[in-house]
Amino acid sequence: MNVDDMVLVSIDDHVVEPRDMFERHVPARYADAAPRVVDQDGIERWVFQDVVVGSMGLNAVVSWPKEEWGMDPTTFAEMRPGAYDVHERIRDMNRNGVLASMCFPTFAGFSARTFQEARDKDLALTMLRAYNDWHIDEWCTSYPGRFIPLSIAPVWDIDALVDEVHRVARKGCRAVSMPELPHVQGLPSYHSDWWAPFFRAVSDEGVVMCLHIGQGFAAINSPPDAPIDNLIILATQVSALAAQDLLWGPAMRTYPDLKIAWSEAGIGWIPFYLDRCDRHYLNQKWLRRDFGGQLPSEVFREHSLACYVTDPSALKIRHDIGVETIAWECDYPHSDSMWPDAPERVHRELVAAGATDEEIDLITWGNSCRFFGWDPFAVVPRSEATVGRLRALAPDVDTSIVSKHEWRRRYELAHAG
Amino acid sequence: MNVDDMVLVSIDDHVVEPRDMFERHVPARYADAAPRVVDQDGIERWVFQDVVVGSMGLNAVVSWPKEEWGMDPTTFAEMRPGAYDVHERIRDMNRNGVLASMCFPTFAGFSARTFQEARDKDLALTMLRAYNDWHIDEWCTSYPGRFIPLSIAPVWDIDALVDEVHRVARKGCRAVSMPELPHVQGLPSYHSDWWAPFFRAVSDEGVVMCLHIGQGFAAINSPPDAPIDNLIILATQVSALAAQDLLWGPAMRTYPDLKIAWSEAGIGWIPFYLDRCDRHYLNQKWLRRDFGGQLPSEVFREHSLACYVTDPSALKIRHDIGVETIAWECDYPHSDSMWPDAPERVHRELVAAGATDEEIDLITWGNSCRFFGWDPFAVVPRSEATVGRLRALAPDVDTSIVSKHEWRRRYELAHAG
Repeated sequence: MNVDDMVLVSIDDHVVEPRDMFERHVPARYADAAPRVVDQDGIERWVFQDVVVGSMGLNAVVSWPKEEWGMDPTTFAEMRPGAYDVHERIRDMNRNGVLASMCFPTFAGFSARTFQEARDKDLALTMLRAYNDWHIDEWCTSYPGRFIPLSIAPVWDIDALVDEVHRVARKGCRAVSMPELPHVQGLPSYHSDWWAPFFRAVSDEGVVMCLHIGQGFAAINSPPDAPIDNLIILATQVSALAAQDLLWGPAMRTYPDLKIAWSEAGIGWIPFYLDRCDRHYLNQKWLRRDFGGQLPSEVFREHSLACYVTDPSALKIRHDIGVETIAWECDYPHSDSMWPDAPERVHRELVAAGATDEEIDLITWGNSCRFFGWDPFAVVPRSEATVGRLRALAPDVDTSIVSKHEWRRRYELAHAG
Repeated sequence: MNVDDMVLVSIDDHVVEPRDMFERHVPARYADAAPRVVDQDGIERWVFQDVVVGSMGLNAVVSWPKEEWGMDPTTFAEMRPGAYDVHERIRDMNRNGVLASMCFPTFAGFSARTFQEARDKDLALTMLRAYNDWHIDEWCTSYPGRFIPLSIAPVWDIDALVDEVHRVARKGCRAVSMPELPHVQGLPSYHSDWWAPFFRAVSDEGVVMCLHIGQGFAAINSPPDAPIDNLIILATQVSALAAQDLLWGPAMRTYPDLKIAWSEAGIGWIPFYLDRCDRHYLNQKWLRRDFGGQLPSEVFREHSLACYVTDPSALKIRHDIGVETIAWECDYPHSDSMWPDAPERVHRELVAAGATDEEIDLITWGNSCRFFGWDPFAVVPRSEATVGRLRALAPDVDTSIVSKHEWRRRYELAHAG
């Protein structure tokens, strides 16, 4: 397979919520209470219930020079517009040969932590629903066939959580972003029966739980003098901790239809973790664990989609992970993204690992689309969906390295007068 | 290579300290203050400074039926004698085809935690030295060529720590068991300069730091309702956290001769961790990290020996770990041990991974012996050191599954009248 013939569906990207996102989705009587972007001494911040919340442009550094990556964008003006503008996003996706994308929130928190921590939970629930309506009905719908919708949910209230799962499912949304390790954010752990109604609801609706890395980092007691490298490098280590609670707790074994995506988790931890699980299960017989006649590794694979940006060694033992379990992702507009050269790099890595054309198709789009029940060619026919055809739509996209200062200059020029 | 032709050096086993271990190694005036084994309602416990310390027979379940594994042995009588009796240990090693063994402590703590937590630190230091003298001069010396000595050290006092490293090195001991993550046991983290004199001392003496799993488990904030499986399965996840502090802190980059053994850590975390380190280093250029013109993965490999019991998937990508970096270990007498069939199982796993004869030799003895500067054939000639030849020395060793009650019966019979 040539680079141009690949189809790419990125199962983990990020949207920086635009400043007007609540305007069309909050009931009129709550309009004044919606989160809003406030300029504080030249820094734009989201404010909700008089508190600064979330992070406006977390890690949205795509196309910046690397020397500028140490600080997140402080205003919309500093960012590449594809971070928050859906029309520019589509142009950037075309330039990167990406047919479709699932976008995680930014200021709202990967699993709605901004709303979980809000004082007035009724108001928070209203705004959370407005977020989902904006995301599903506006962001995703503006370009049919190009976005796989992803909801957030009121994780602090099991009844409201279940209701929201059903509500977004009725809109056709088959994904919900959830905490990796709820016990580190003040909720019952996934071992607890507290989650049973949620697990039932997502199983019934065919909704995938997406566990994005970064949320559970508090599960690691880092040294007080550790550099930032610890956080960035070790974030994926938390995925094995989360897998442990879902595989050895009730979730995966009680709910056969439960589906979990390990978002940005990488895949290299999986063969090691599963070998160890199987050995433990077979060796520590005195614990009498019941996996219904299967091995723990088999149960894990039935429930999992493992998402990676780059993982050259692990791809060589993809059969020990399960080729049907692996899905590529882009991570635009974060620093791990390979925009605009993802196709070349993904192709090179898969070919170096010895992947066949069939395996490349599974990993770059087939597994994601099957897992999320999403037909990639319902709107864009396959012949139009390839890297080569999409790139041909966006020959004029500027792919040069651009300083945040230059972005600001262009933004002010565009918004002047 | 046939099973019988392999040479096996196990770089991680465990000794249950015999009850008389301090008798010949404590200065006369402190004899009464030495730790001693006390019978408390039929349970034998080590007591030091009037406090119950350590764990007498931690996980020493070899040859027990699996249903009995849930409880550690409570008396010496319940254990297979090879756990604490050096003559029986050698017979068990022969039966398992193991030429040589490095034995970690039990009640003393993997990195002398029992002494670190003692009230009277001067007395603790005296007893720690007695432990080392017993281990090196008695346990290891009783069968020349069969044990690679491993010291423990006063980690709470940097000057005494450095002195002890030099003292045991003068006795020919080239290994010291250290904390995985000292910051979780009340010490400065490995990022701190506090450790600099220690890193210099072990580098100068060619002494290997051995970081055994299990010590740093407090680095993971586990759910309060997690089952014991979490502890057993996730213990090896801590090794990547420890590697992070030593690779991205000053240790590996400041001390080119520093050597670290990842004891019982498994090897499957390494390709994933190193891929991620290299990607981080090459991608996050704004951090300006300096690895002296090398990649982080290269620096890690220069300093590391990665020790595994069983790791079938990871062995397939051994070249991404570094074949010279991998060392097999037995873990006798713990539940992870494959005694008495380790040779067959090690051989099967290596052959399934496609290892050549040369690679098998490196992994089963070559790498360990090079790393610890220990000549395996100085006493036992190579022709006598193979699995086949050692097994022929111990045809009468009982390898059947034996209940702790039966061990007790035999013990009482042997010690009667």
